[in-house]
Amino acid sequence: MKESSSPLPCSVAFETNTGLMPQATAHYQKRLSDLRGLFLDPAALELRIRAEGDPVCYENFAFNQNQAEGDIFFGTTIIYPGKVGSEYHLTRGHYHRKRDHAETYQALSGHRLVLFEREDGTTCTAELAPGKVTYVAPFWAHRSVNTSDVPLVFLWTCPVEAGHDYEGLGGRGMRQVVVERNGVPNVEDRPRS
Amino acid sequence: MKESSSPLPCSVAFETNTGLMPQATAHYQKRLSDLRGLFLDPAALELRIRAEGDPVCYENFAFNQNQAEGDIFFGTTIIYPGKVGSEYHLTRGHYHRKRDHAETYQALSGHRLVLFEREDGTTCTAELAPGKVTYVAPFWAHRSVNTSDVPLVFLWTCPVEAGHDYEGLGGRGMRQVVVERNGVPNVEDRPRS
Repeated sequence: MKESSSPLPCSVAFETNTGLMPQATAHYQKRLSDLRGLFLDPAALELRIRAEGDPVCYENFAFNQNQAEGDIFFGTTIIYPGKVGSEYHLTRGHYHRKRDHAETYQALSGHRLVLFEREDGTTCTAELAPGKVTYVAPFWAHRSVNTSDVPLVFLWTCPVEAGHDYEGLGGRGMRQVVVERNGVPNVEDRPRS
Repeated sequence: MKESSSPLPCSVAFETNTGLMPQATAHYQKRLSDLRGLFLDPAALELRIRAEGDPVCYENFAFNQNQAEGDIFFGTTIIYPGKVGSEYHLTRGHYHRKRDHAETYQALSGHRLVLFEREDGTTCTAELAPGKVTYVAPFWAHRSVNTSDVPLVFLWTCPVEAGHDYEGLGGRGMRQVVVERNGVPNVEDRPRS
């Protein structure tokens, strides 16, 4: 039998409403200042960073640091509610470094959406909602957006070797943006700068 | 960009209490007669097959028929409550054909357990419970057992190329069995035949 540096079989608790995962092997937070260059309105971003002491936009817990092909890691992402100008809080968004690697999302709390984009420019969206598994298909970049006024908490499950390519989106994120129009979320093409 | 036969990104609904997945791309049922050779008490099994018209022991819904490396498929398994003699209803149990491939389980309804076993004879168990992700580590065969009196429903997520090897367990299932003793479930070593 080959040796493995994977954890032993186990059951890993997560809190549905907060995303807290006490047995996580990794954790990071992204504050608004970490997300410069991504939002449509840089002036609104700087204003919030100064006025609110650079709040956390989203955070991430993960279980399993093993890097061997065939293994899986999983975790929670929590996107706190808020807007930068009219644009809702979001994750950075990425392609997988191995483009042909898939992922799944499962909303635990909150009911929002994922933006998808392929390298040929095709876009689509899918809802993140409790009671649904969101299939993050191979070759599609993905970014999650919280359009609600409560934290959006979701589980993700991914092959460990998928990897993250944040540069494939040209640094700015996705072609589409989610902004508030007349009090409701709207998916629009990013304005040409 | 490489072509892919994966589904497009989407959100796939499942019913927490029944495991029903209307958008499933595959579905199967295992009746008691499909599980001959696995239970400790073959006479009790035949009696139930005759008396109850060969009831369904468990069933499975899956989404994504793509077979390309790096892709993920997921689905639900529902183990109906019941015992064969003193032994609780179970899934067949398998190694992954690619031994180094992992999987995750997530109980939606019910609160039971997974038996694990490695080729070197090591065994362990983990609970299946809502609010926990059960990590099915590489190299460990796995079988789920419903020790409750309601259906056990769980989500599973797995690399598509992991594959199933049912023969690695020698046809009989796992080294450990879960039986009722004095009204409560007990994990025991399988008696030598």
